Amino acid sequence: MEARIAVFPGGEEHKNIESLQELVRALDAFPIHRRDEPILAIGGGVLTDVVAFVAASYRRGVPHIKVPTTLMGYIDAALGIKAGINFNANKNRLGAFEPPQAVLLDAGFLPTLPRRHLVNGVCEIIKLAVIRDAALFERLERDGARGVATCFSEPAGEAILDGAIGGMLEELVPNLHEEELARRVDFGHTFSYGLETLHEHRLLHGEAVLLDVLVSTCIAQARGLLSAFEADRIFALVEALDAGLDYGVLDTDLMWASLLDRIKHRNGLQRVPMPTGIGHCLFLNDISRAELDAAVLALHSRTKASHEPAIEC
Amino acid sequence: MEARIAVFPGGEEHKNIESLQELVRALDAFPIHRRDEPILAIGGGVLTDVVAFVAASYRRGVPHIKVPTTLMGYIDAALGIKAGINFNANKNRLGAFEPPQAVLLDAGFLPTLPRRHLVNGVCEIIKLAVIRDAALFERLERDGARGVATCFSEPAGEAILDGAIGGMLEELVPNLHEEELARRVDFGHTFSYGLETLHEHRLLHGEAVLLDVLVSTCIAQARGLLSAFEADRIFALVEALDAGLDYGVLDTDLMWASLLDRIKHRNGLQRVPMPTGIGHCLFLNDISRAELDAAVLALHSRTKASHEPAIEC
Repeated sequence: MEARIAVFPGGEEHKNIESLQELVRALDAFPIHRRDEPILAIGGGVLTDVVAFVAASYRRGVPHIKVPTTLMGYIDAALGIKAGINFNANKNRLGAFEPPQAVLLDAGFLPTLPRRHLVNGVCEIIKLAVIRDAALFERLERDGARGVATCFSEPAGEAILDGAIGGMLEELVPNLHEEELARRVDFGHTFSYGLETLHEHRLLHGEAVLLDVLVSTCIAQARGLLSAFEADRIFALVEALDAGLDYGVLDTDLMWASLLDRIKHRNGLQRVPMPTGIGHCLFLNDISRAELDAAVLALHSRTKASHEPAIEC
Repeated sequence: MEARIAVFPGGEEHKNIESLQELVRALDAFPIHRRDEPILAIGGGVLTDVVAFVAASYRRGVPHIKVPTTLMGYIDAALGIKAGINFNANKNRLGAFEPPQAVLLDAGFLPTLPRRHLVNGVCEIIKLAVIRDAALFERLERDGARGVATCFSEPAGEAILDGAIGGMLEELVPNLHEEELARRVDFGHTFSYGLETLHEHRLLHGEAVLLDVLVSTCIAQARGLLSAFEADRIFALVEALDAGLDYGVLDTDLMWASLLDRIKHRNGLQRVPMPTGIGHCLFLNDISRAELDAAVLALHSRTKASHEPAIEC
């Protein structure tokens, strides 16, 4: 069987309808059979998301196989069946639920990543740990920094990745098509969408998610769902992992607008996952604008970078 | 529940990614809930095909309901679950299999159609009759012209439409996702695609299909699959219905290229449905370029319009 290669650049700013059209033209130029010549998507989460949507749409669906090369892909993006592109300043506005024929996980790609992209994946692991897995959270506290430093090549680091993948699959598999709209994995994916779209050149997906996780942590603490001790553990972990978050992007207007859009996406209710202790959560439907404003103020007051000016890239 | 209206023009030339993007922007502006505010697609086959693909892709899928207003929609386009747009000069290159919540069939729209658009739908009925339903073919011979003249409002005309819908559903329902690639309803949809794309302002879909049906009839007759008597019945029916076909668009290079693309679409084999008598068919995998050329010559020699020059609109 002949294989041909089409290249397209990664990064949130390329997760768009122009990239989709370029890939479709490349497929037309090959061309491929409809059933027995699967598309191999080799790359990060943006690439596998876009290629999976191309595969879902090309001739109303051709097979594809995902090979994630980033930590974000390895523990998150490549695992589910969600495909999509951003459109009209909205994240994943167009997409499909498209099962791949296979997902090939090879940790051998991880040492090729710059530190920032390793931490990008770790942000999603933190999210998962806070909301559903206290043991994974403890592993991150104990072995996370070393895991980043060694590209998760040592047994303790591998255990973190295995825990993340196992937990993610437990969340995704029973609800592949999101018939249940209250999803624990949506933690960190409520206030972040607008930030990520506006700052697509500046924020990585995991960084936006982790900012949302910390704002949500402040809301949960203010509501008494999370103790000060537990909130402190979350902030201490983020500091220990040196996530390099850009608190200058926080913008409550934009974050509130993201929540309003999520209400449409979650069919009329907020359904915001909120931690109730490390490893547990409930869903809130009554977060107020005042709570969000107070949480962002609380976050700024906890972080040193809060008063640094925002710098556009 | 509040309803809002987005308008977009019909016609093959609007079945494209620009229309899709306009509709997505309109949905964003409404905006709609993900689950309980279905999109109503009211229009012809192009409109319902495009809107169904928008519905399939918007937020990875929102519900839609189809209300066909053309005969083509009523007896063909709105019945299945195929959605799509043309792209890169290829028909339906991007799309989805997207079941509607409902299809509302109301023959009360048919008297609003110009004669050419009524005949456009009849072309697909002829296709269906030739390939699978001798009784429907006889009805067309007896009552088809009167049906067109009365917009199928009389019992004999209604019986033709009911026969067409019933036959179409019998073909579609057992194979909704086209797991079987040899499909009888693909009759007329092999050589026509390139013609239709190049002449999107000049040819209606049914007209392109009927041209393909007549070329295929000539191939079948030349192979001895169809008797001269049966081929004559098909040509006599087309003449009686005054289909106004534009034989000037026939172009064997383009038609051969369409067949080659269909081989990709049908995963490596031609799988061309070919009549073996009125109401029966088999699938061919070995049609040669010489056969196609001879069939187009035979078709020209049978039709008065064969030597008229092609006029570009």
